[in-house]
Amino acid sequence: MRTDGKRGRNTRGTSIAGCILCFLCLLCSSPSFAQGVLSDPKFKSAEQFVENDHDRFVREIIQLTEIEAPPFKEQKRGKAFAAMLKQYGLSDVTIDAEGNVIGVRKGTANGPLIAIAGHLDTVFPEGTNVKVRREGTRLYAPGVGDDTRALAVLLEIIRAMDAAKIQTPGDILFIGNVGEEGPGDLRGMKYLFEKGPYKDKIKMFISLDPFGAGNDVTNAGIGSKRFKVTFRGPGGHSFGSFGLVNPAYALGDAIVKLSKMQVPSRPRTTYNVGVVGGGTSVNSIPYEAWMDVDIRSEAREELTKAVDAFTRLMHESADEENRARSTSQGRIEVEVKLIGDRPFGQTAMNSPIVQTASAVIQGFGMNPTYGMSSTDSNIPMSLGIPAITLESGGNGGRNHTLDEWIDVEKGPSVRGIEIAMGILLSLSGIQ
Amino acid sequence: MRTDGKRGRNTRGTSIAGCILCFLCLLCSSPSFAQGVLSDPKFKSAEQFVENDHDRFVREIIQLTEIEAPPFKEQKRGKAFAAMLKQYGLSDVTIDAEGNVIGVRKGTANGPLIAIAGHLDTVFPEGTNVKVRREGTRLYAPGVGDDTRALAVLLEIIRAMDAAKIQTPGDILFIGNVGEEGPGDLRGMKYLFEKGPYKDKIKMFISLDPFGAGNDVTNAGIGSKRFKVTFRGPGGHSFGSFGLVNPAYALGDAIVKLSKMQVPSRPRTTYNVGVVGGGTSVNSIPYEAWMDVDIRSEAREELTKAVDAFTRLMHESADEENRARSTSQGRIEVEVKLIGDRPFGQTAMNSPIVQTASAVIQGFGMNPTYGMSSTDSNIPMSLGIPAITLESGGNGGRNHTLDEWIDVEKGPSVRGIEIAMGILLSLSGIQ
Repeated sequence: MRTDGKRGRNTRGTSIAGCILCFLCLLCSSPSFAQGVLSDPKFKSAEQFVENDHDRFVREIIQLTEIEAPPFKEQKRGKAFAAMLKQYGLSDVTIDAEGNVIGVRKGTANGPLIAIAGHLDTVFPEGTNVKVRREGTRLYAPGVGDDTRALAVLLEIIRAMDAAKIQTPGDILFIGNVGEEGPGDLRGMKYLFEKGPYKDKIKMFISLDPFGAGNDVTNAGIGSKRFKVTFRGPGGHSFGSFGLVNPAYALGDAIVKLSKMQVPSRPRTTYNVGVVGGGTSVNSIPYEAWMDVDIRSEAREELTKAVDAFTRLMHESADEENRARSTSQGRIEVEVKLIGDRPFGQTAMNSPIVQTASAVIQGFGMNPTYGMSSTDSNIPMSLGIPAITLESGGNGGRNHTLDEWIDVEKGPSVRGIEIAMGILLSLSGIQ
Repeated sequence: MRTDGKRGRNTRGTSIAGCILCFLCLLCSSPSFAQGVLSDPKFKSAEQFVENDHDRFVREIIQLTEIEAPPFKEQKRGKAFAAMLKQYGLSDVTIDAEGNVIGVRKGTANGPLIAIAGHLDTVFPEGTNVKVRREGTRLYAPGVGDDTRALAVLLEIIRAMDAAKIQTPGDILFIGNVGEEGPGDLRGMKYLFEKGPYKDKIKMFISLDPFGAGNDVTNAGIGSKRFKVTFRGPGGHSFGSFGLVNPAYALGDAIVKLSKMQVPSRPRTTYNVGVVGGGTSVNSIPYEAWMDVDIRSEAREELTKAVDAFTRLMHESADEENRARSTSQGRIEVEVKLIGDRPFGQTAMNSPIVQTASAVIQGFGMNPTYGMSSTDSNIPMSLGIPAITLESGGNGGRNHTLDEWIDVEKGPSVRGIEIAMGILLSLSGIQ
């Protein structure tokens, strides 16, 4: 567990209670405890339920996928998910001020509060066709695997625990959260861990995101910074003012410069131009042109270097356009505005949560792999709260594109659900 | 008058009537006839009215400017303008199937049908603040001078003719037309001259567009071609799929290549990137990125050369992006789609309409200048119908930008209205 300044402040007032919780947590979450849970008859019964219930699970993926959930517009899907949490018996189902849907499965004692979440939002704008097309065991639809499958996994785990009469010492929060993608900038998690009623209460966090076999554990959060770069100029008539500076030309040059920016492959460092826009009519020189840029790195210093280089390039492009054409009616100005900032974070390899996840994955006969990514877990990790991001099961591909698909072939699909359930229950303990 | 194939076909069946009309037209429209009109007491009386009525004229500019009229959404302004045409006594006020507002001022005999028009549409999208800000004699607002002032000039001419009891032998059409700007692609004129009820009936056409002293006569229509260039690719996750081809990078490269394209300054040839767009979220590689491009030239062969060079550059940019990054998930494809095509056209310098306009301008003590442009007159010109585009009077600047302004200082403003009225009545004759 990290003990950086922020986390220290958060727990200072509850140090004795914290120690007891940590001890209980360590006790429950040891790898050997994980083996015990996996062989528990109740867990076996829950697994059997998941297998028998798979058709309903697939129906619920489709049902939720077909409710569009663009960034900042997750309400409709959120309401449907809240209704399902209630239907499956969770208590205190709420939609918090940020839009996160949270249901509580009550524990029997004072075990640590664990939260498990999938994100409601997709990257796709309003009006995207989200109708699911099924071909054999494949489901095709924008958002079907990133991250709608995870929402259905949460519902399946709740039903299986109920069917197998599994009780846990502590409460478990089942969460469909907002704002994981793009401009959301992890707003759901920032609210949950930094402002909302569960602030300082969640002791462990699991994010399921996105599809995948189930053996990968993301235990480090890649930092990312996101920018809106806007070039502004005087505009003008396309014919009458030909020869004046054009912000679209500065933007084009900036895109080209960025596309040639050198970044290391280790530590993996990336950039992306994700959205471009600007201008009002074909026969006018635009008065502004802009792009949204995402820069990420596995290493803090590489991120800083890449951001510095990128910022320099943006100003160079504005300067070059001002040299290339007439500034008689005004110059090109550039604004580089930070629109997203995902903190770095890490959950130690030898922490109980990572060790337990590894043991469960091995218990399913698979080799765990470990990775860095930029997910909802970045926020708890950055606050020193043990957090991991797991795959939600099954195969899939092309997420963030209109061709996104998942395979719900029963074997791998069920195993993914069982691994997530196994890790959750090994962390919480079962009764 | 041009006698190319199309015009030949249109008039073949009415050649004798056509000859008589041409004769009448020539008779009325000679420069000496223009001098007679300008010194006619009724015309003097109309001029006096324009001078006295200037405050109302300015109020009507403001009133019409503050009704937004984006491309393809001119209806609201069109309805208001139609109501004003009715209010000032025109008959047969209609809004045709394309959206053009047309009112008829009936003639007393069978003189040639003359049309005078300003365009309803602006380049500005819905939601643009169109509130007029007045500073001294200057009015600031998007669209105030291009072309809203012209609409108010039409209303002023109608009122002045009525006040001075001026009758004309032929009918005059007063038109507020749609689709002059950008994507409108002259749809108002194309409908008026090629499809609507006045097809083949209008014998002379005057467009007022935009503001300006009033001594400039556009008697040649610059050809322009407009394109939507769309780069499409496989898309992907910004981090997970880093290294795949990105259509935004191809777009950036295409913009840079275009911005360096060599075009002659004589005959004036221009290009413009007017609108750019694409992508769905900052953390996704876009599956498409696009731009709208305007290419114009005073010379047909230069336009063809520029379009060919531009098209080649677009394909080069797609190819270069496919070489620069991985195409493992799919290649960048480019589509170059023609979205606008304004025909070339010319009204001969020695034609009665140009000669009459020149004489009237000289009658106001000014030196006429002659130009080429891309205006509503391109359509009648391309059909061989005598057409000119005149300035609507007054000073102004920065059209097609949010800083657009006109000066309604009384002297130059009134003179512009009087010149337009003088040219119209010299062409029609007065009784």
